[in-house]
Amino acid sequence: MNASPHVAVVGATGAVGIEMIQTLERRGFPVSRLTLLASARSAGKTLPFRGQPVKVQELTKESFAGVDLALFSAGGSISREFAPAAVAAGTVVVDNSSAFRMDPAVPLVVPEINGADVRAHRGIIANPNCTTAITLMALYPLHAAFGCTRIFASSYQAVSGTGAKAIAELERQVHQIVRGEPVTREVYPHQIAFNVLPHVDAFLPSGYTKEEMKMENEGRKIMHHPSFRASVTCVRVPVYRAHSVAVSAEFERPVTVAAARAVLANAPGLDVVDDPAHAAYPLPLYQAEKDNCAVGRLRQDCALDNGLCFWVSGDQLLKGAALNAVQIAEVLLKPGA
Amino acid sequence: MNASPHVAVVGATGAVGIEMIQTLERRGFPVSRLTLLASARSAGKTLPFRGQPVKVQELTKESFAGVDLALFSAGGSISREFAPAAVAAGTVVVDNSSAFRMDPAVPLVVPEINGADVRAHRGIIANPNCTTAITLMALYPLHAAFGCTRIFASSYQAVSGTGAKAIAELERQVHQIVRGEPVTREVYPHQIAFNVLPHVDAFLPSGYTKEEMKMENEGRKIMHHPSFRASVTCVRVPVYRAHSVAVSAEFERPVTVAAARAVLANAPGLDVVDDPAHAAYPLPLYQAEKDNCAVGRLRQDCALDNGLCFWVSGDQLLKGAALNAVQIAEVLLKPGA
Repeated sequence: MNASPHVAVVGATGAVGIEMIQTLERRGFPVSRLTLLASARSAGKTLPFRGQPVKVQELTKESFAGVDLALFSAGGSISREFAPAAVAAGTVVVDNSSAFRMDPAVPLVVPEINGADVRAHRGIIANPNCTTAITLMALYPLHAAFGCTRIFASSYQAVSGTGAKAIAELERQVHQIVRGEPVTREVYPHQIAFNVLPHVDAFLPSGYTKEEMKMENEGRKIMHHPSFRASVTCVRVPVYRAHSVAVSAEFERPVTVAAARAVLANAPGLDVVDDPAHAAYPLPLYQAEKDNCAVGRLRQDCALDNGLCFWVSGDQLLKGAALNAVQIAEVLLKPGA
Repeated sequence: MNASPHVAVVGATGAVGIEMIQTLERRGFPVSRLTLLASARSAGKTLPFRGQPVKVQELTKESFAGVDLALFSAGGSISREFAPAAVAAGTVVVDNSSAFRMDPAVPLVVPEINGADVRAHRGIIANPNCTTAITLMALYPLHAAFGCTRIFASSYQAVSGTGAKAIAELERQVHQIVRGEPVTREVYPHQIAFNVLPHVDAFLPSGYTKEEMKMENEGRKIMHHPSFRASVTCVRVPVYRAHSVAVSAEFERPVTVAAARAVLANAPGLDVVDDPAHAAYPLPLYQAEKDNCAVGRLRQDCALDNGLCFWVSGDQLLKGAALNAVQIAEVLLKPGA
């Protein structure tokens, strides 16, 4: 990889795209040139980068000439259609969609966990599902120490995980309710304001949603742990930003709260926020716009013999998407990657 | 019990007390006379019953002369102080607080599950924790059919579970945010609007909250199942009314989704709402003010061999409190109870 790469952001005007641009700037990523790509509808808009406006261009298969690195976040169908064209043009793609995550030829990477897997890429590196990435930031260090066999997890997912239109939907519904107007829906199948929806992503014939199965499938690949089992319920909640997950984890070896706390205190990208006596535990409201995830509510699991309960929150636009993608790009810049 | 009892509601002006009065009326409970009791601060207010205003009186130890049945919902310390005085006056107490639930001399009853336990009362019958009652409405029929060994559960609890002041707090915070004003807090230790709090009830030295342990402790007593294990995370969410719970349940005997669905379809007080293809699953917004609880999202558990995942929602002011208390009173009226 060119040490000062020409970077493209695909889906630049979306909730994640905007975070990608800001994250590149904030972390001082050595961008020599920034190309912003989006649908024809968004072409011509400008977005700021390092204090300068950058015009958004329409994404075409010819957009990638001279581009060293492309960060994709425009949905699976756009990735499937345009990532191969980017790779053919010599661009390395970091893809935030689910399109290539389970492709054996594509590394699926959380840099703190399996950054070395980046080296095996053949043009595309996949960024994991947001809820999976946030959960693994706390689970993987525990797995490395105690050997995780399975988890039971329930999520509390923010509307920004669905995108900018869902943020607007929650805002609009709240205003409608405050004004006593009828509530309208465009994004979610039911009102999200003052409600919770046990429905994230599409349903599979098994009754699980695709989102729920990502924890087990992507978790196995990222942790190199093919027998990992995960029973997950994914729930959308009326929170703007940052996902939270309640986890019961079973381990091969005995685990105490003190030993788990010591492991988590040394884990990269993770803060331990766990002082119930002072009402200190991770909260999505406080994790918004933070790079680090936070873990707390550590306790011995009541229903597992070698088990631990914990609660993890993280900004799913950052660690669950833009930050993780830029961290993968940072690994690509290292010699030998 | 007198077939047309003189009924007192203790804590009549609270969120649950108001529901108790309405539930007595709505179900045609044969009240011969209604006495409303509350703190001195609320005395003199009037509340409607069968179209007539009833004046609220100050609760004292002399309030129970001639009262056949008292429904208490004014918190544990009021129950501990005044329920013995009521019993001494010959009143049968149905207590919604946690004060007597684990007392071996006090039946703890969900009428659909262990209604016969009412008969053993010595003056006090306890009403269970709201999240426990709602979860057991779906879990107990499955336990009866397949033998439940343990559950992993995460709750999504409405603010009305905390009381009328918490409803006002969420409303006030939403208005403050819509108007761009600073957010103020009186009830919860952190903002509840657009946030979720993994903190319901007080923390124990183990790191669990009292609320989280009620599922295992009360579940064992109600189901007559002393080895039942429950690993629970209780979370407050910005929903006004109706709690939801995501459950992974392990059974002694094999369970299929079809067999579970057949059992649940015949369970009393429970609706099966489970048609993902049409985005049909239990939602707290739709369960508000409904007597029945609803169960859906049925699926084979990914991380348990004889396991089932499900999602249950119910109005915690009704099945979790006022309705269950009135149902206990209905059992008391039956001959032989």
